Order: sequence, then C-alpha cells, then structure tokens
Amino acid sequence: MIKKNFKIEKAPMSRLTAMRKMRKNQNVHTQINATRNIYKKRKVTFCPQSLKPFFSFPSCVRFYFLLSSVAFISKKYNSVKMVHKLILLRHGQSEWNSKNLFTGWVDVKLSAQGRKEAKRAGELLKDSGLKPDIVFTSLLSRAIQTANIALEEADFLYLPVVRSWRLNERHYGDLQGKNKAEVLEEVGPVQFKVWRRSYNTPPPPIARGNKFAQFDDARYAHLDPSVLPATESLQLVIERMLPFYQDVIAKELRENKTVLIAAHGNSLRGLVKYLEKISDDDIANLNIPTGIPLVFELDDDLKPIKKPYYLDPEAAAAGAAAVAAQGQKK
Amino acid sequence: MIKKNFKIEKAPMSRLTAMRKMRKNQNVHTQINATRNIYKKRKVTFCPQSLKPFFSFPSCVRFYFLLSSVAFISKKYNSVKMVHKLILLRHGQSEWNSKNLFTGWVDVKLSAQGRKEAKRAGELLKDSGLKPDIVFTSLLSRAIQTANIALEEADFLYLPVVRSWRLNERHYGDLQGKNKAEVLEEVGPVQFKVWRRSYNTPPPPIARGNKFAQFDDARYAHLDPSVLPATESLQLVIERMLPFYQDVIAKELRENKTVLIAAHGNSLRGLVKYLEKISDDDIANLNIPTGIPLVFELDDDLKPIKKPYYLDPEAAAAGAAAVAAQGQKK
Amino acid sequence: MIKKNFKIEKAPMSRLTAMRKMRKNQNVHTQINATRNIYKKRKVTFCPQSLKPFFSFPSCVRFYFLLSSVAFISKKYNSVKMVHKLILLRHGQSEWNSKNLFTGWVDVKLSAQGRKEAKRAGELLKDSGLKPDIVFTSLLSRAIQTANIALEEADFLYLPVVRSWRLNERHYGDLQGKNKAEVLEEVGPVQFKVWRRSYNTPPPPIARGNKFAQFDDARYAHLDPSVLPATESLQLVIERMLPFYQDVIAKELRENKTVLIAAHGNSLRGLVKYLEKISDDDIANLNIPTGIPLVFELDDDLKPIKKPYYLDPEAAAAGAAAVAAQGQKK
Amino acid sequence: MIKKNFKIEKAPMSRLTAMRKMRKNQNVHTQINATRNIYKKRKVTFCPQSLKPFFSFPSCVRFYFLLSSVAFISKKYNSVKMVHKLILLRHGQSEWNSKNLFTGWVDVKLSAQGRKEAKRAGELLKDSGLKPDIVFTSLLSRAIQTANIALEEADFLYLPVVRSWRLNERHYGDLQGKNKAEVLEEVGPVQFKVWRRSYNTPPPPIARGNKFAQFDDARYAHLDPSVLPATESLQLVIERMLPFYQDVIAKELRENKTVLIAAHGNSLRGLVKYLEKISDDDIANLNIPTGIPLVFELDDDLKPIKKPYYLDPEAAAAGAAAVAAQGQKK
Repeated sequence: MIKKNFKIEKAPMSRLTAMRKMRKNQNVHTQINATRNIYKKRKVTFCPQSLKPFFSFPSCVRFYFLLSSVAFISKKYNSVKMVHKLILLRHGQSEWNSKNLFTGWVDVKLSAQGRKEAKRAGELLKDSGLKPDIVFTSLLSRAIQTANIALEEADFLYLPVVRSWRLNERHYGDLQGKNKAEVLEEVGPVQFKVWRRSYNTPPPPIARGNKFAQFDDARYAHLDPSVLPATESLQLVIERMLPFYQDVIAKELRENKTVLIAAHGNSLRGLVKYLEKISDDDIANLNIPTGIPLVFELDDDLKPIKKPYYLDPEAAAAGAAAVAAQGQKK
Repeated sequence: MIKKNFKIEKAPMSRLTAMRKMRKNQNVHTQINATRNIYKKRKVTFCPQSLKPFFSFPSCVRFYFLLSSVAFISKKYNSVKMVHKLILLRHGQSEWNSKNLFTGWVDVKLSAQGRKEAKRAGELLKDSGLKPDIVFTSLLSRAIQTANIALEEADFLYLPVVRSWRLNERHYGDLQGKNKAEVLEEVGPVQFKVWRRSYNTPPPPIARGNKFAQFDDARYAHLDPSVLPATESLQLVIERMLPFYQDVIAKELRENKTVLIAAHGNSLRGLVKYLEKISDDDIANLNIPTGIPLVFELDDDLKPIKKPYYLDPEAAAAGAAAVAAQGQKK
Repeated sequence: MIKKNFKIEKAPMSRLTAMRKMRKNQNVHTQINATRNIYKKRKVTFCPQSLKPFFSFPSCVRFYFLLSSVAFISKKYNSVKMVHKLILLRHGQSEWNSKNLFTGWVDVKLSAQGRKEAKRAGELLKDSGLKPDIVFTSLLSRAIQTANIALEEADFLYLPVVRSWRLNERHYGDLQGKNKAEVLEEVGPVQFKVWRRSYNTPPPPIARGNKFAQFDDARYAHLDPSVLPATESLQLVIERMLPFYQDVIAKELRENKTVLIAAHGNSLRGLVKYLEKISDDDIANLNIPTGIPLVFELDDDLKPIKKPYYLDPEAAAAGAAAVAAQGQKK
Repeated sequence: MIKKNFKIEKAPMSRLTAMRKMRKNQNVHTQINATRNIYKKRKVTFCPQSLKPFFSFPSCVRFYFLLSSVAFISKKYNSVKMVHKLILLRHGQSEWNSKNLFTGWVDVKLSAQGRKEAKRAGELLKDSGLKPDIVFTSLLSRAIQTANIALEEADFLYLPVVRSWRLNERHYGDLQGKNKAEVLEEVGPVQFKVWRRSYNTPPPPIARGNKFAQFDDARYAHLDPSVLPATESLQLVIERMLPFYQDVIAKELRENKTVLIAAHGNSLRGLVKYLEKISDDDIANLNIPTGIPLVFELDDDLKPIKKPYYLDPEAAAAGAAAVAAQGQKK
C-alpha cells in the first residue's frame, strides 16, 4: 500500500541549518557541515512491511508511541555537544635539516622542500573545509614561514596571528649548531639517544658567549631574561609550553574558535602528550610528521572526544615512519 | 480511553538543555533560561476528543502527517536565532551636578548620591539574571566608579574591562567648569539650548591654557594628540564613538558575548541613536536616566530585534522625566 | 706649544651610548645610531691657532666661559627629543594589475612581479638598519603577502602583527571587477578621472548580490555589518582609516615603538595626507610608489619633524612617476 | 673677588632624579624640561682662592684638564640605567579574616577594615609620586576591590587593568571554608604549621562537590579546566604564577612601564621570593603586610637594583609583625 520510502533527512537538515545560523563562527559551520554530510549519507527508509506489526496497535497507542520516539530522537540531537577543533601543524624541512645540524632555537629558515611541505599543508587545510579562526606560531622563522605559506594557500591570510616563545622548538643547549653525526660519534649512541629522546635529561647547557645562543636575541627582549633556557629536555618544553596553551589557546577553544598552531616537533609532541595523556615513556615513540595538519576534536572541557586524525593519513603514516627512521639512523 | 493529557514540554526542554550545553557562555544561559520559562508556562495538552477526526484517516496517512508536523515544529525551533545582549549604563550624579557646573571631560568623581545609583544598578543587574562577559568604560572616573560599584554589587568584579576615550562624555568646550545658570543668564535661553541640545552645534572651543582643558592629561597620552577635541557637538561625539563600537564592541557582541558599557549621557545617547536609527531632530528628546541598565537585544547583524528595555522601567520613566525637566529648567 | 688637535667627539658619544642603554627598544637604538654617525662624521678639532684670542682673556674668565659652553652643549643635548619612526609600505603588483581591472576590496593575490617588489622592500628595510617593533596590515591578502615576504627577507618574521579592515584599499564600489579601459570608454575620461582621483566623489555603490561584493566575507564577520562600505571616495577612506591610526597605531608610536604598516595606495595616501597636512586638491597629485618603504620621523606629538623619505629615493621617484603615468594613461 | 665655592654635585644628582622621573611616553617631554630647569636654576659660583693652584698650570693644560673632567662627568651620567618600577599591593582584611576561616579561592569581599586599608594604600601611592602605567589583579574580588579603591584614591582609575587567575591567592584545598582554630585543634600544631607555612606540602585536595570548590566558577570558564588546582602549596603557587609574570608583566616592565599588582599574601610572597632569590626555607619567615605598597626597582634585566621598600616603612614593619604573630597565634 505504501509506495514510497520516507526520508526523514529533511528534519535534521533544517535543524542543522538553524544551528548554523545560531553560531556564525566559521568553525561551527565546518563542524556542522561534517555532521550534515553524515546525515546526508544515511538515507533512512521505512520499509512498509516491517511496520505492519506497528499498525496492529490501537491508533492512540500508536500516536503516543510516535510522540515518544520524536521526544527520544530530539533528545539525542540535543545531547550533541559543541566540538572544539585544534589543528597542529609541524613545520617542514629547514636549511639545517639537510646539513644534519642540531637546530633548536637557532633561527634557520625553511628549505625549498620545507616550503613545498607548507604549501601542501595549506592545500590539505583548504580541502578539509576546516576554517581556523585564529593562528598561533612560535617565534622561530621556520614555523612562521610554514603558517604564512599554508594560510596563503588556504586563503586564510587575514586571520589574526599570535606568536609566543612558549611554542618554540626544544632548546638543544650546547648541541645547537653541531653536526649530529659528529656528536653521535663523539658521545656514542647511548648518550646520543638520551639527549634526543629521553623525557627529562636535557643536553649540556649552552654558554652565554656561544654564537648559537639566543640570550641577547631581540625576539625575546620583551621577556623576563631569567626565563630563557640554556638547554631543555622534553619535560622542560612541556612545562614552559603548557601555561600558554592552558590560558591563551584554551580561551580561544572555549570560545568555540577553531585554532591552528604552527610549531615544532617537540613543542607539538608535548601538547599531544598532554592532550592524549601519553606516558613519559611512550612519548619517545610518538613521531609527528612534518607538514600534515593533525586535527584534535575536543569536548567542552577540552578533552579529546576521539583519536586525533591527520588530514592526509597515508602521507602522515609515511612521514611518521620517516621521522622515526631518522631518529634511529643517527 | 486516553486518560491523561499529553505534555510535549519535555522535548523542547531537552532541546533547550542541549542548546545550553552547546554554548557555555553565560549570556547564552540567561537567554535560554528566558526562553525555557516561556515553554514552561504553556502546557500543551491534547484533548482526545478533538483528535477524533484525525483518527478517521488511514493509519499511514496519519503517520505521514505526524512526521510532517514534527518536521514543521523542528523547523520553527531552528529559526530561533542567537540574541546578542548589550547593556548600557549611564553613571549617576557627580560632584559637579549638585554644583550645577558644566562637566564634559573634567574628571569629577561621583557624589554620594551617584554611588548609591551605581549600587542600585548593580542590584538590578544581579536580579535580572543577565551575565555580562566583558565591560567597557570611558576614561572618566565617574563612569569607571559606576562600573566598579555596580560590578561589585552584582558579583562581576572579575570580568575583563576595556576603557576607551571614545566612550567619554561630550566635550563641553569653553563651557567646562562654568556655572550653568550663569551661562544661561549670559547668553540667553536660545543659545543655551542650542549648546545643550542641538545636534551639530558645538560650544566655543576651550583654550589650551584653560585649567579645565585636558590636552596634557596623562590619560590621553597614548593617543595621537590631534584627535583630542577642544569642543564637541552630539554629532561629533557620535563620529568619534562609533568606530570603537563598530570594531571593538561589535566584535564581542558577534562572538555572542553579553556586553556592559558604563558611560555617559551623550556617548550613550549617540549609541542609542545609531542602534535605533533615531533622526537628528528626535534625538534631542531622548533622555537616558542615570543608574538604570538599558538592555538591547540584537540579532546576528547587530540590529535590535525589539525596543530596548530598562531593568527598572518605572524608575527609568521617572528618571528620564527628571533629566528632561533638568534640561528645561535651565 | 699645543701639538695635537683636541677631539671632543668622545663626550657626545658616551652620552649617546648612555641614551642607548636608557632605552633598550630597538627603534631607539637605530635612531641613536643614526645620530651617532652624524657625530662620528664631524671630527671637531681645535686648531690652537684659532684659539689664541681665547687665551688672551684672564684665566678666570676663560674658566667661566668654558663652563658656560659645557652648560650650553649639555642643554642642547637635553633638548634632543625622541624620534618616533613610522614606515609605510605599499604592496606591489597584484594579479589584477596586469589584467587592468579595478580591484578595491576584491582579494586578489600578488603577481610574481609583486612578490619581487615585496622582497626588494625587505632588502631595503634590512639595509636601512630600521628595526620595526610591530607590524600592521590590512585584511587583504596582497598587503599581508607583502608584509610576510618583506619581513622574511629582513629577518623580522617574529614581530607581532595586527590586522585591520581600516587599512584596506579604497572600496571601488560597482567598478570592482570591471576592466579599466572598458569603464573609461563607457563613461568618458572626465567621469573616469572623477572616480579615480576626486577627493570626495565615490563610484556607484556595489549591489549586495554582485559577485565582487564583500558583505558576507568571513574576514569582516567580527565587525558591525553596518560599517562595511558599498563604495568609497578617498575622503571616506580617510574617515574610516584615521580612528585606527589615532588610537591603535599612535599608541605604539607614543610608546617609542617603530611601526611598519603594509597597506594600499589609497589608505596610505590618506595617512600621508593627514600627517603632511596636504590639501584636498593637492592629494590628487600624490603618488606613492609600490614596494619602497617610506619613512616618517615624528616628534612626541606625532608631527613630522622633516619630510618623509623613501629608503630608495631614486627608485621611488621613478615609481611615483610610473604610478602617475598609469593614472594619466587611462 | 669671587667669594663662594661652586658645587657641581647638585647638578648630577638632580639630573639623576630627573632621569628617574623620565617615563618614556609623554613624560620624556617633562623629563627633559625638568632637567633643563635644573640647569637653569643652578647658580655656578667660583671661589678664586681655592682654585689658585689650578691657575698656576699653563692655560692649555688647564683647558685639557677641564675637558677631561667634563668627559668624566658626562660618562658617569651615561652609566645611569633605566629603573623599572614594580609595585606590589596585598589586599587588606576580608570578611572571612574576622571569622577566622581559611579563604584561599573562596571569593569573599573586603571588610570595612579592608576597604580602609585599600584607601590608605591609594593615599600612599599618590603621595609617593609613583605613576603606574598598568594594573594587574587576580580574579578574586578582594584584590580587585583593593585595586579599585586605591586607584580611585590616587586618581588612577583610568589605567588599563589586566586580570589573571595566576595571581590568585593560594588554593587552600579542603581547608577552604573551615575555621582555623578548629582545624588547629583537630590536626595539632605541627600539621597545622606544615599546611600554613611549608614550602611544598599542600593541604588535602578539595572535592569536586564541596561547596567551597571553584571547579565550575564562571570566572575560570575561559581556561583549560585541567589547570584548575584542587589544592596548592606555596611552590605550586609560584609555578603557576611565574609564567604570567615572566611573559605578561615582564613585557610591560621591559617597555619601561611602571606596574602595579594588586594580589594576595601568597602570590606576592612567591613573586618576592623569585625576585629576591629567597631560599625555600627562608620564605616561611617573609610576611608581607596588607595595604602598604611595596616598591621594587629593577634594572634592564629585571633584577632588583636594591632592596624593595614599603611606601610606609613603619606601618609595614608593624604590619609584618602582626601577620607573623597571626601565624604563630594559630
């Protein structure tokens, strides 16, 4: 008797449209677009055959039953919480990567390869439909270049940008400016690995007069000089990075803004460790590939509601493997 | 057969609960609380008798009909837009009010009466359930005192505060520091009224050396000195006030923050003129009472969705009449 | 008897050194370096012969005379005021320049030529020894790209950046997206010149639905929508640009920060008109060349203490002539 | 003939005073004017008798000698560095002080006595001639009230104010809301003293449901919820307070702004410990009296150039003794 399938996709869609209007923040747009796509894909159809038993009930019971269902579905919609999006972007190859030098806080620029990676990150961002509302960078040129190039590619140059030394790469202490292979040969693989990957052992501190030190760098002239490190372990990186995340970045997230952070291997590893509650031991095995945006979806308390994902998962897996291999090689 | 009335209040409530969770901003809370109360009050009941004709249709038709209704109701819910709240608060009596002197930019403090008015404003704010997210004040002490006292009373001292000279009272030029009655006698009622109430005729400019001039006041030391006025009409007040509203305050409103502005008779009249599109002639008759918060509800384009209302309408009417009388008396 | 020349360059130098230490801001450094160089260059020598008449006075008189000189010189030092530096940078060729289209608020990117100009601007900035403390840009990509490229070249990527729509190019109204030659043919040279160069006649307004309109552009979503123009004359550009200069940029200048503004032909012409007090008629003849930083030196009241200068005066003259010719050609 | 000795000591000293008053914004004017006036006023007189030996030298030698002296004095002037001023103000008695309750993060207001103390602080500030450029407060009402009242008294209400939870009082954990005497009786004096004064032992954590907990307090809604403490030792206070000092407050100091911080016994003790490099043991004996501004003078590296001083040293000594006694009593 019933000839056509019913589609209830209409209702959720208008609901979503309204939600979109309610919050004009772009991030909400994207998150709702995502949700809408899910609804679009599942075409809910009512097979009349399967409904037969339903119609054997008296009409009033059926009426009540239907209303209850509506209330239930409505309730489920309502339990959908705001999703706060945080996008992490690790800068690509720098001029010192190819030279195999410890970089840390030395302000080297991106190589041609690194610029390509940044451009690719911008394309991924654009294709993802994600719309950042604000951008954070470290004070180091290679992260800022990465942000500039990616935002140009994704047509987000107009976004407000905030920079902080607290997002800087790990300070490599006295190793800064030294050749990795030479250091490895000099100190042996055990000590070398400790400096590169142990959680809480920093390399020897850099001397004030060392030409690779940053104590008098103009970019830090607005800070209490006491805060500038002479060397850092990953633990120290996390300790100095977190206050900036917890106060400044968290504020934007809690105001439902989508946040993009362009920074470095270790400052981002520190943040991922914090968000994902990775142990001090396991963090040694976390490798963040360069140039591939990593997206966190957080609940209202800024806890991840699912595993973070890369905008290009395959390239990310390859990239992480490459980073890991690089670690082992040396 | 059906013994009880159906209440569908449950569904809208859970919808609202969800909306409440979606945006943790306090302003949303209050606006939704208001909406919820409306829903609470109307108890939608289904009289089974009146439904009888409905049940004469075949069950499938009825099923389809019900679903359509649900879609329709759902759509109506969805058309509810965000309401942005803007609260204006005019400071109360200052020490020069009782002395009947033209004040303008001269930095006199609140009188004991003015402090009482500010406290009353805080009580009204607290009772209203409105929760500002950010506070703006002028650079003049009497507006700042009003904000401080009202926020203390309403337990909102912790809110971020931004001050701008663009919210200052009208600069009264050479009249500053002069007795109103004496000026009236000197220039006659016509000229006096022009200076007090004309839209675009400012009083004579104040001289640099005048002890009631502010050209060297430290509170303006961060500005381009050229921007400091020597006298102002209401039109000039609006021209210098609007850029601050359109950029800085509007940003907060569009981010769904409830905004409180503590300022002055003329800077607030200028803002009301702009929001309510009051003509240059009619604005002369607008009198904003002191110490009673005036609430604007704005849509996503920051257009008022209804007439603004005072938190104490009766006192506001009396206060506006008093201000008007004050104008006529002199 | 006296064998050697006396050099008093030492004293002023140490005085200047101290001044340098007094203010650690980099901009002060540079300004003092400039001054020091002046002192360095003039080697003040005391030819004993020329001093002979001096020694004919009684020694006490001479002693007194010398002290007076010291007091006088000292006084002169003291009258040295702070110099505040403001650097204006007009973006280079955009993708629509070569296509001969009216651009205005349409967000086109730099052409390869425009990128080269931005790089050249960075080189000039680096060579000048000027050290900006903060950077301002419009919300349009071509100005932001120009800033990004120039700062990268000059190693200033780490600087804080603030963007504002108030620094945007003039809104070209309905002309946006149209071919200049075609418009010229259509309306004739008189009307064409009025639209391009008259001070207060804007082109016809753009319609809301026009694909080259920006009413719904996300980059302006934080503003009061009423403030967005549909067309602008140079006068209107100045009116909307000045409040940002007078409040936000002036604050940085008065805090002795060197400011770099990367913006557009008309927003920068408006600022130069304001600073240099150029008349409404004469401003039509002011052409700011692209890609060459223009430096203003301002006193404590932000008044120019001398004519602004280009970092590459010859190229600037050629560039200005080219811009003027471009204007005449069409 | 010339009867009196000349004193040149006056000039350098008053010169220094003037330099000290120099504040880089508008005050540079005044500074230079002041210095100039000093030179104007100084009446250099020559006693010929005492100078006689000097005049026995050949005139050229004398000439050279004089110039050297000038260079020497000038050099001495120049070695004077900028002094950065930091003013700490501990709030006065709160409503819970008289009730002898542990307060911590519970947001109680000032008592009448506490308001008087704040007013006195404002008077001291005004009399001192110190001119703060920016004010920092915690997010707790009693510190904000203290700032508001003191600034009103000292005519500095117009100053920009920044608030941060990082300046909050120590979180007293589960002790919050409990009577000190009762806790003392319950746990004994040893444990009591450990909780009150040990450097790194925090009291037991407060439970989420405790009515004196602040986990859901709107004033912290912009933060990462993970950062909110459930209890704190002084060490933990310092760890969370320092990043705000090192980044945000230090920036203002290094820009030569005079900073006023209105905060709490423990957050200020933490800052004093940091600045004065007080050991973990000795800090237990540091008592900061309430309501008396404590002034730090810092060099360009933000190191104290001398011991900090109270604006009312006698009252401060009495106050510190009272605080210490209070500690011992209970």
